[in-house]
Amino acid sequence: MALRPVQVNIKALDASAVGRFWAEALGWSAYSPGVTTYVGPASGPVWPDPFAVCVDVVPVPNAKTMTKNRVHLDLATTSTSHQAELIARLKALGATPADVGQGDVPWTCLADPEGHEFCVLAPS
Amino acid sequence: MALRPVQVNIKALDASAVGRFWAEALGWSAYSPGVTTYVGPASGPVWPDPFAVCVDVVPVPNAKTMTKNRVHLDLATTSTSHQAELIARLKALGATPADVGQGDVPWTCLADPEGHEFCVLAPS
Repeated sequence: MALRPVQVNIKALDASAVGRFWAEALGWSAYSPGVTTYVGPASGPVWPDPFAVCVDVVPVPNAKTMTKNRVHLDLATTSTSHQAELIARLKALGATPADVGQGDVPWTCLADPEGHEFCVLAPS
Repeated sequence: MALRPVQVNIKALDASAVGRFWAEALGWSAYSPGVTTYVGPASGPVWPDPFAVCVDVVPVPNAKTMTKNRVHLDLATTSTSHQAELIARLKALGATPADVGQGDVPWTCLADPEGHEFCVLAPS
């Protein structure tokens, strides 16, 4: 039987705040029943979610270093205007531009409020 | 319109080898049309995949540092025996035990051939 990715685990100083960012970014909900904040579809916390690959944010005592993360999320968009609108919305939520040496590329590199890089991809 | 996570991006010295590891781990296929290795369902490369959150492995010139990644994948299992069998299979594929200070927990922390940590979760 195959394995299945079930969630993406992110470490954060303020797991609740980073979880809220990702929930608002993805149009999902954040649940913090204990120390970990779970981010998933708004239908409620289901684990393991049978369809979605959710995000869980786990508190840690140390901040991200300046080093670029070697694992990150890419987010899909459906049109150029969708991409532009969403980048604006993500920045309003606290995302900042990230220069990871990407140069002139069709995707946009941003970082969440604790500096975890992610990309908003151009439509295919 | 909401965003959607579409892929998890992993940096590697040997993108092809790390891509093959993840393809074999997940029961997916690896496609390397250029420098990037795409890992997704065996039905063939579709981008963006309408359902699965795929993995793409991008070559970089630098190795992972000793620092624990702040973003990682968690993999789901369906029973205790499934978890044990898959951990054995992943180790045979080149995964190594990872000590990230997790202590005595029901999930198992491993690292891919270039040291990217991931967890094989206990069944819910």
